[in-house]
Amino acid sequence: MGKAVPLVEVWRGALLESAHSGHAVICDAKGQIVASWGDPQAVIYPRSSCKMIQALPLLTSGAADRYGLTTEQLALACASHNGAAIHTTRVTKWLDQLGLTEADLRCGPQDPADTEAHEGLILAHEKPCQIHNNCSGKHSGFLTLNQYMGGDPEYTEVDHPVQQAALAAFEEVTGEDSPGYGIDGCSAPNFATTLLGLGRAMAWFATAGQRSDQGSAAGARLVQAMMKHPELVAGEGRACTALMRAMPGRAAVKTGAEGVFTGILPELGLGVALKITDGTTRASECTMTALLIMLGLIEAENPVARSYCNVPIRSRRGLDAGVIRPVADFIRPL
Amino acid sequence: MGKAVPLVEVWRGALLESAHSGHAVICDAKGQIVASWGDPQAVIYPRSSCKMIQALPLLTSGAADRYGLTTEQLALACASHNGAAIHTTRVTKWLDQLGLTEADLRCGPQDPADTEAHEGLILAHEKPCQIHNNCSGKHSGFLTLNQYMGGDPEYTEVDHPVQQAALAAFEEVTGEDSPGYGIDGCSAPNFATTLLGLGRAMAWFATAGQRSDQGSAAGARLVQAMMKHPELVAGEGRACTALMRAMPGRAAVKTGAEGVFTGILPELGLGVALKITDGTTRASECTMTALLIMLGLIEAENPVARSYCNVPIRSRRGLDAGVIRPVADFIRPL
Repeated sequence: MGKAVPLVEVWRGALLESAHSGHAVICDAKGQIVASWGDPQAVIYPRSSCKMIQALPLLTSGAADRYGLTTEQLALACASHNGAAIHTTRVTKWLDQLGLTEADLRCGPQDPADTEAHEGLILAHEKPCQIHNNCSGKHSGFLTLNQYMGGDPEYTEVDHPVQQAALAAFEEVTGEDSPGYGIDGCSAPNFATTLLGLGRAMAWFATAGQRSDQGSAAGARLVQAMMKHPELVAGEGRACTALMRAMPGRAAVKTGAEGVFTGILPELGLGVALKITDGTTRASECTMTALLIMLGLIEAENPVARSYCNVPIRSRRGLDAGVIRPVADFIRPL
Repeated sequence: MGKAVPLVEVWRGALLESAHSGHAVICDAKGQIVASWGDPQAVIYPRSSCKMIQALPLLTSGAADRYGLTTEQLALACASHNGAAIHTTRVTKWLDQLGLTEADLRCGPQDPADTEAHEGLILAHEKPCQIHNNCSGKHSGFLTLNQYMGGDPEYTEVDHPVQQAALAAFEEVTGEDSPGYGIDGCSAPNFATTLLGLGRAMAWFATAGQRSDQGSAAGARLVQAMMKHPELVAGEGRACTALMRAMPGRAAVKTGAEGVFTGILPELGLGVALKITDGTTRASECTMTALLIMLGLIEAENPVARSYCNVPIRSRRGLDAGVIRPVADFIRPL
């Protein structure tokens, strides 16, 4: 793997306290590089940043139409949600629709990131369940496809037809053979790719509306669903939701664990993929926002942009202590 | 600043998913380097890893004895605690003893990391207060010194006598003039030093019991208090507490924000200081534990060591997904 480059700095007073390096690429659907930082050939796990790829077979198989899935359900299939009521009520209803229950999920329980949901569970003396898991929408999509295909219940096994369909879609849109997989936090396999492959996949989604094949039609529907329901893709206070709301209809963006972030830019016909080497979310959010500013999709002074790029660091009493900002050399005209 | 070196790797399946670099030094009280990784001259903020230095004037001034502070209070003065009942009841009593209240603190409110305390506040429909702040013990120490000195209430201002006393102690034990300060999360100034300076300070504490001057006597009392009350220095489930319990009387260790960790090793007469460049706690905990293993203070197979070094990564359903481990080149005989 080539060398990562400095992308984000954390300043406190007059001292550079911490720093983050990584790789980023902006490319078109052919994988032509428009701009890159670090090594576009770096092999990474996309983690949750590729959920829209994992959702493709749900549509291309015909399952989504057979079950009459709504754009809300398609957005949830691509989501890393906060486990707020707007997410969990819809996932519960989706499982009902399939005649399934929480016990059919294989994502494991997770405490909801949403404050109201988290405190509601404590006040009700309840524990979080699998529906609260940020991936429960993706897994509801897996379950829908599995029911349509008549597969066995262990749909997260790598050799299960649901995951083999996800792999086939992944290799098609990345344009690469995946060199392997890891087990994700939700127990599903997460296939590896080069950063360029992930960027190419995002450009494939960005240009899907310009093509007429069945796969591209599925991709375009997922992108439209994400942009129509940004609050379902993540939740209040989250970067994906706030950034998509700030660029309505112009971009679909998706975070992933361990410092990954992807962007689908239909207006420009481009895809973005980035990975922070140390896996830190504050740096992936700052880098993605800086790239969106460079691409002219959001103003640097937009309050949403300022929440993730050039972010003030404050003490717990509110004193101004520093800033999280992109490295000066990273910013350039595109 | 010299180049940081790879210290910690995060593996998922057969792929290196993320990596952390940094600087580390082991030295004696004269600042003679026993071993180092990266650049011992790197200038850093010690953050909470230097609380035992900030507590020195509380003892050397005579304030601690005038107020009859217990070893529990001295441990709390050096703590980044979880805001559990064992911490907050003692801080509340300490403020009472001074005739002060929560409103006299200047650390700001913080939600307690301790699960029972966090859930207790929600169940009682209460908000966290300044006593829950992980630094409330340090600030109670500042308030004690301030009352003894008769200073004004704004004891976190950098030119306040309490902070100037902390600076004088800091420069004495690091053996360096501090090049500046930043505002810490608790609004107190945090003075910068080289990593070597911080390591030298820790070695000064480690050898304090061998010297007879007043400052060293104060340092030795603080180290003894930390080692006697590991549960007060951090709390259940925290690295500092678990590691000190696993090496009873042999080491005092202290974490700091943004990937700093310090170690006081009286048995060896050595000090340890390390900084992870990206500021990540999983990496500072892994690196410190690896150093303690290399120094023969804890066995690699000790369950506590395994909680922070060679840590299994599991999915939310408990599947084995990977490992957080020290870089092979970093490990060497000392």
